[in-house]
Amino acid sequence: MNILEIIAKKRDKKELSKEEIEYFVQGYTKGEITDYQAAALVMAIYLNQMTGREITNLTLAMAYSGDVLDLSEIGQQIVDKHSTGGVGDKVSLILLPTVSSLGVKIAKMSGRGLGFTGGTVDKLESIPGYQTNLPIQTFIQNVKEIGISMIGQTLNLAPADKKLYALRDTISCTDSIPLIASSIMSKKIASGAQNIVLDVTYGSGAFMKTKEEANKLAKTMQEIGELAGKNVTCILTSMEQPLGKAVGNTLEVIETIRALNGQIEPDVEQVILLLGSHMLKMGGLGDNLEENKEKIKDAIKSGKAFQKFIQMVEKQGGDISYLLHPEKFEKAKYITPVLAEKEGKIQKLHALSIAEIACSLGAGRTRKEDKIDPAVGIVLEKKIGDKVKKQDTLGYLYANREITQQEKEKFLNSYVI
Amino acid sequence: MNILEIIAKKRDKKELSKEEIEYFVQGYTKGEITDYQAAALVMAIYLNQMTGREITNLTLAMAYSGDVLDLSEIGQQIVDKHSTGGVGDKVSLILLPTVSSLGVKIAKMSGRGLGFTGGTVDKLESIPGYQTNLPIQTFIQNVKEIGISMIGQTLNLAPADKKLYALRDTISCTDSIPLIASSIMSKKIASGAQNIVLDVTYGSGAFMKTKEEANKLAKTMQEIGELAGKNVTCILTSMEQPLGKAVGNTLEVIETIRALNGQIEPDVEQVILLLGSHMLKMGGLGDNLEENKEKIKDAIKSGKAFQKFIQMVEKQGGDISYLLHPEKFEKAKYITPVLAEKEGKIQKLHALSIAEIACSLGAGRTRKEDKIDPAVGIVLEKKIGDKVKKQDTLGYLYANREITQQEKEKFLNSYVI
Repeated sequence: MNILEIIAKKRDKKELSKEEIEYFVQGYTKGEITDYQAAALVMAIYLNQMTGREITNLTLAMAYSGDVLDLSEIGQQIVDKHSTGGVGDKVSLILLPTVSSLGVKIAKMSGRGLGFTGGTVDKLESIPGYQTNLPIQTFIQNVKEIGISMIGQTLNLAPADKKLYALRDTISCTDSIPLIASSIMSKKIASGAQNIVLDVTYGSGAFMKTKEEANKLAKTMQEIGELAGKNVTCILTSMEQPLGKAVGNTLEVIETIRALNGQIEPDVEQVILLLGSHMLKMGGLGDNLEENKEKIKDAIKSGKAFQKFIQMVEKQGGDISYLLHPEKFEKAKYITPVLAEKEGKIQKLHALSIAEIACSLGAGRTRKEDKIDPAVGIVLEKKIGDKVKKQDTLGYLYANREITQQEKEKFLNSYVI
Repeated sequence: MNILEIIAKKRDKKELSKEEIEYFVQGYTKGEITDYQAAALVMAIYLNQMTGREITNLTLAMAYSGDVLDLSEIGQQIVDKHSTGGVGDKVSLILLPTVSSLGVKIAKMSGRGLGFTGGTVDKLESIPGYQTNLPIQTFIQNVKEIGISMIGQTLNLAPADKKLYALRDTISCTDSIPLIASSIMSKKIASGAQNIVLDVTYGSGAFMKTKEEANKLAKTMQEIGELAGKNVTCILTSMEQPLGKAVGNTLEVIETIRALNGQIEPDVEQVILLLGSHMLKMGGLGDNLEENKEKIKDAIKSGKAFQKFIQMVEKQGGDISYLLHPEKFEKAKYITPVLAEKEGKIQKLHALSIAEIACSLGAGRTRKEDKIDPAVGIVLEKKIGDKVKKQDTLGYLYANREITQQEKEKFLNSYVI
């Protein structure tokens, strides 16, 4: 077996065997196979596609290229959740403590955001004291004790995926369904998940621009799950406009606190109920999805969900006084309202453009080394379907410097009224 | 313009513009575009093909990536010749002095062989004293004075092609017609040719295994010629078995001397007449191909062709006493006849396998650094169509060490009797 034969085989539209895929993934991880050979193979995969069996073997080979977390001692009720990404996506922050309060076990490792907005770990770190880099044994111990822990990626999970992901970015091979599906699933499998609920987003603020593409990605990941012996449920959700009101780390934590206290935005609630009802089902806590939704509503209404959030934050060293008194969070120095310049009904609100503004304010990072400013971001007062009058506040830009005219205009242009 | 867009365009089967192709070729030559980006683009070209216009633009961009020889002062009668390669291919050695003796101007730069047998330069260097690295001005001066010069590649011709060619070898992208055609034509254009006769070989000893493939390659190169304003004539010739009797550097020079003295092998003669008649036509020395063939036969018969060869060798510092007394050439220490083990008619004689044996004896190089042994090689006494009896000599292996049993068996197995 050698890499030239493997490249030639995929170039000629033939199916690669398990051994060939493992040979490539291991060789590439070790640096024995060069970047240019991997690039040629990736382009051949992009153009000639892969069968379900090949995608699953690629997923498993990448999953086992580094550390693999063993969560078996926690038991069957453990359910993982992953989203293909969006703008203002605070779903994990609200959803996971809520389903945990109902008995689902949550051992969640999240990545940092590399994109226009921070990731779940960045958001959690905006709570003073919150530790995201717990040792794995403490992480597992916490889940055993209180049913939930949310940390960063402290292990060397799927290094092959990291390398391939970075390569794909430099050779115009990012938007390939087999490669996206195997990338996501390899990380999930390496982080020990047996039951996985996947939130596959679509729309202008998501990686998949259309529902058809999202559906194809969902099917592929479900197929990997079946072939790899994992339980996978995919939920398609729209990401045409940002989710909820806040975009930015502290701002989203504050929205989370309000949501867990009953003041939840309708679009956020819809996603929480949808994903949550499936997580309860997967965790063996009820097969009836409609009943599960009621349980979730009750958990929030009764304060159980918020209590679980407080318990988790406290367990991980966070200062819970901020959760109880969100006004304590350090505020951005400049909070600039942007007013509507005409009246009418909002037809569109471009998620990506909102994300880009938030990033330019300091809420996201474009390079791994960039520092995030937790306080900055955007709060949207008007969203799609809302009627506005001239001079109505569309939203607020939170920044630690003055807003530029360009940013203000870009914000205004994000709305189609 | 950036490389990601260019890769994405070819990935999506779109036609690249002249500017995009130049941007890639220049960036890659300078090292600003990485090997892995080039690898992804090359695989996309391999799988999605290129239009005639793209291939021509790629050819010209590579041709102009380094030095370009200006031969305009020599005039219109200059004709270049190139072969896509074969085993025992001494055509240039015999053909070029012959047509030169009839008035075609020959300014030929040849590469060293990288493959199983030596290239034209390696063969010429087996004549003691022959200089293949003349300064360009001397090279041109020689052509002006005596109508012919044959040297090695002393200029930095088409460095982009060199880099891409080496890359293709490591990513299973060698056998792509657009890439082969542009590689050959870029070198020809950089070496100043206006009139080019291309010998496109096919069969087991050639790069193109079938006549159909060879035909496709020929058409593509002809199309490049038209679009680039060059006169190109392609001749398809079979390379199922080695050409002539000798395979190996000195051995082929000796066969050349015999041929130029009238003892030419029929298969060699056929190719010489075919290519030569077109070269005379291109050089403006006669439009009737059949008449041209007669002129070539006469040039050889009269000794004019051999005189031109002697004149060229002398002009380039070679010791012509070797040409007049070929027995002076240093002989290999071991000359081993291999005898037929059964009787019958020879159906096949595998050119590639003969080439591999010659290479293992030291006649070729597998790495650029390898040294060639001029004296070693193979002389075939029997070829396709010949009848043999048991114990007849099929051929002689020339070596400077004893022949291994394996080599002897491989030689026997090259024949299908």
